[in-house]
Amino acid sequence: METVNFVVHPSEIITVNSHSEILRDTSVVVRDGKIESLLPTTEARALRDIAQVDLSDHVLMPGLINAHGHAAMTLLRGIADDMALSQWLNDKIWPLENKWVDQVFVMDGTEIAAAEMIMSGVTTASDQYFFPDIAAQVFQQAGLRAQLTFPIIDVETAWGRSGADYLEKGLALGDTYRDHDLVTVGFGPHSNYAVDEPLLERTATLAAELDAPVQIHLHETAHEVLSSVERIGERPIDQLARLGLLSPKTQCVHMTALGNQDIDTIADHGAHVVHCPKSNMKLASGLCPVSKLLDRGINVALGTDGAASNNRLNALNEMQAAALLAKIESGSPEALPAHKAIEMATINGAKALGIDHITGSLEVGKAADMIALSTRELAMLPGHNILSDVVYATSGNEVRWSWVAGHNILRDRRLQTLDTEAILRKAASWRVKLATG
Amino acid sequence: METVNFVVHPSEIITVNSHSEILRDTSVVVRDGKIESLLPTTEARALRDIAQVDLSDHVLMPGLINAHGHAAMTLLRGIADDMALSQWLNDKIWPLENKWVDQVFVMDGTEIAAAEMIMSGVTTASDQYFFPDIAAQVFQQAGLRAQLTFPIIDVETAWGRSGADYLEKGLALGDTYRDHDLVTVGFGPHSNYAVDEPLLERTATLAAELDAPVQIHLHETAHEVLSSVERIGERPIDQLARLGLLSPKTQCVHMTALGNQDIDTIADHGAHVVHCPKSNMKLASGLCPVSKLLDRGINVALGTDGAASNNRLNALNEMQAAALLAKIESGSPEALPAHKAIEMATINGAKALGIDHITGSLEVGKAADMIALSTRELAMLPGHNILSDVVYATSGNEVRWSWVAGHNILRDRRLQTLDTEAILRKAASWRVKLATG
Repeated sequence: METVNFVVHPSEIITVNSHSEILRDTSVVVRDGKIESLLPTTEARALRDIAQVDLSDHVLMPGLINAHGHAAMTLLRGIADDMALSQWLNDKIWPLENKWVDQVFVMDGTEIAAAEMIMSGVTTASDQYFFPDIAAQVFQQAGLRAQLTFPIIDVETAWGRSGADYLEKGLALGDTYRDHDLVTVGFGPHSNYAVDEPLLERTATLAAELDAPVQIHLHETAHEVLSSVERIGERPIDQLARLGLLSPKTQCVHMTALGNQDIDTIADHGAHVVHCPKSNMKLASGLCPVSKLLDRGINVALGTDGAASNNRLNALNEMQAAALLAKIESGSPEALPAHKAIEMATINGAKALGIDHITGSLEVGKAADMIALSTRELAMLPGHNILSDVVYATSGNEVRWSWVAGHNILRDRRLQTLDTEAILRKAASWRVKLATG
Repeated sequence: METVNFVVHPSEIITVNSHSEILRDTSVVVRDGKIESLLPTTEARALRDIAQVDLSDHVLMPGLINAHGHAAMTLLRGIADDMALSQWLNDKIWPLENKWVDQVFVMDGTEIAAAEMIMSGVTTASDQYFFPDIAAQVFQQAGLRAQLTFPIIDVETAWGRSGADYLEKGLALGDTYRDHDLVTVGFGPHSNYAVDEPLLERTATLAAELDAPVQIHLHETAHEVLSSVERIGERPIDQLARLGLLSPKTQCVHMTALGNQDIDTIADHGAHVVHCPKSNMKLASGLCPVSKLLDRGINVALGTDGAASNNRLNALNEMQAAALLAKIESGSPEALPAHKAIEMATINGAKALGIDHITGSLEVGKAADMIALSTRELAMLPGHNILSDVVYATSGNEVRWSWVAGHNILRDRRLQTLDTEAILRKAASWRVKLATG
């Protein structure tokens, strides 16, 4: 890795370390892309051999982790709204994808997503979409940390002909990125309704052999759960458990319509939950009982889902939605307080993706995946409580600086790795193309 | 009124007129602060005696109406979060207000609120707080249209000693702003639990005599409804109806825990509902059945509530929260589609405040209360559906221009009437002051 050394002096640091420390008068020293030390600012200012980044009136925090997305679907943003999940998928999204998805679609759509995520504080994106090889390239170009869970699905698409084909291509992708600094690869079986049992079993075997992450849409709606019971006599999560697909490497995305027995099953297997509050609201999918899951010791991360069902890829906004929705879901305004919402969007995301030894908090030895938010923003005034302000008052645009492994990808709100004008041009041409139907 | 004449050429216009028209290649001609005509852009560009404002890549829409707020409470933003309404009011907010609220508090807090609202597209603010005379001055200075519903409450505060005193001061305020261009005044009895029956009756009599708006917190929680039944044997809305306080001039704020009989009562009296989705979520107050109310023909407007319970005064964000929450509340993803959410934040707000003959849509003869949002924003790409993008994809920062009665109050995202640096300085001094306890 290229050498990246600097010291940053923010006015405040939300560490998200195990003591939930908030530090003042403290600077972060970055060497070779890692956090070397947290020093008193007076001491850090005296360092002579290193670049100094002065960020008074900024709060520094770990970069946000978007633990579930379909980046390229930005190109379908707004093309189908205000309809139910099954109609949305069957009548709109899947036919459009059939017609349009190819390597260029994925490249251009992922680029919009990467830019949008960087601008709202994301430093790690998890992505599950066709042509994950292309998405991986775009994320690298953007400078983002990424996890690609390559799609596995029972239907033919532009990227794969069959289950065996998806697995073969995915395994090749895994080989390409073995031991890569920023990119990890996992298995992305779509759901228990779009992947038949033999293919789920094969996925379980390969994932276990490779000790690789698995991400699956699970219990997204009550309908999914009930129709699984009708079809195979089992709730989806029970099928996964039986097939050996539920483990500490499994990321269960959505998880509504959960009974206590389902929660026990998740906990007993050490699986992770990825909560997508805005997508669940927009599609009226159901409510994920986040507080209950956290109380049971289950790790819950946050995802935006794709831009066709959110319609933003704004992790700060998602954190706010999670905190608000948890209170309505549980009936308690004490549910998911600000500091827990921040954990969900940072360290919990890193745990879910299996990269919490690398990122998710600002601690010595971890990668310098950091964002700085301006506190000189009207919505952040007067500034009584930085955790509250970050969760409840931000819009995303307060994010002014971002680094991944010490590399500066956003500098005083200017993208450093992507060309906004080019993105706007390409998006305009897709708008015209997709309008032809 | 000062003469304000110009013509604006946006790329698209969301009119919110009775046909929900979206216009392209159309310009808006403003004379004397009013919309004189909507002309084909080629024709409008040929006008010679008038300033031209070229806003290609912008969508023009009616300014947003924040139909319920407590502007000065920005100074308490983040000071108490993640707790229930009664504890939040009794243990935190009311003691802090007792200690700190005075004319300067209201001036400085309202100024932050005004700036924040303008930056996120609000052109009309309804406000219910102490020293409404001061708030009215700040709103005028900011150039916002405003409705002040002066507080009426059973306890002594810095602004009033008793019910009679509140009414006397409020009536004087009404006299000051009689027939004012931008400011209207109404009655703001806090709630049926904080105002006793004789005072509610007196309010009803005076409001009817003056044909003035009345705004009241109503059915904010199930607890409020049940304890009213225990205390007086009536649900709050039934008490209002009995006292003659429920009419087409009444704005019922919050409205959760509604049975069908309550909905009938609102409809039968032609009263308005002001829905505050984020405040209701954050305090876990309950769910307002927005879709049911709209289906019943009831006018539902949108409010942010105060920054101590939201914590943003961002009407675009509130519109998004309303659309998402309605789907979860009703279990239907078709509930509150984008165009209806926009109506709630514009024309419905104007109807609730009794000013829909003046504002709330872009139509000939109405005041030029307009905002322009940039569509060259990452989150607005690729731009398949402007209504969807405005509701589901914006963060608030897309608002670049704003006019109230033709006066330009936001120009390419720079505030024209307020001094951001001065606001930041004053907020910092309040942060220090309030931290002393």
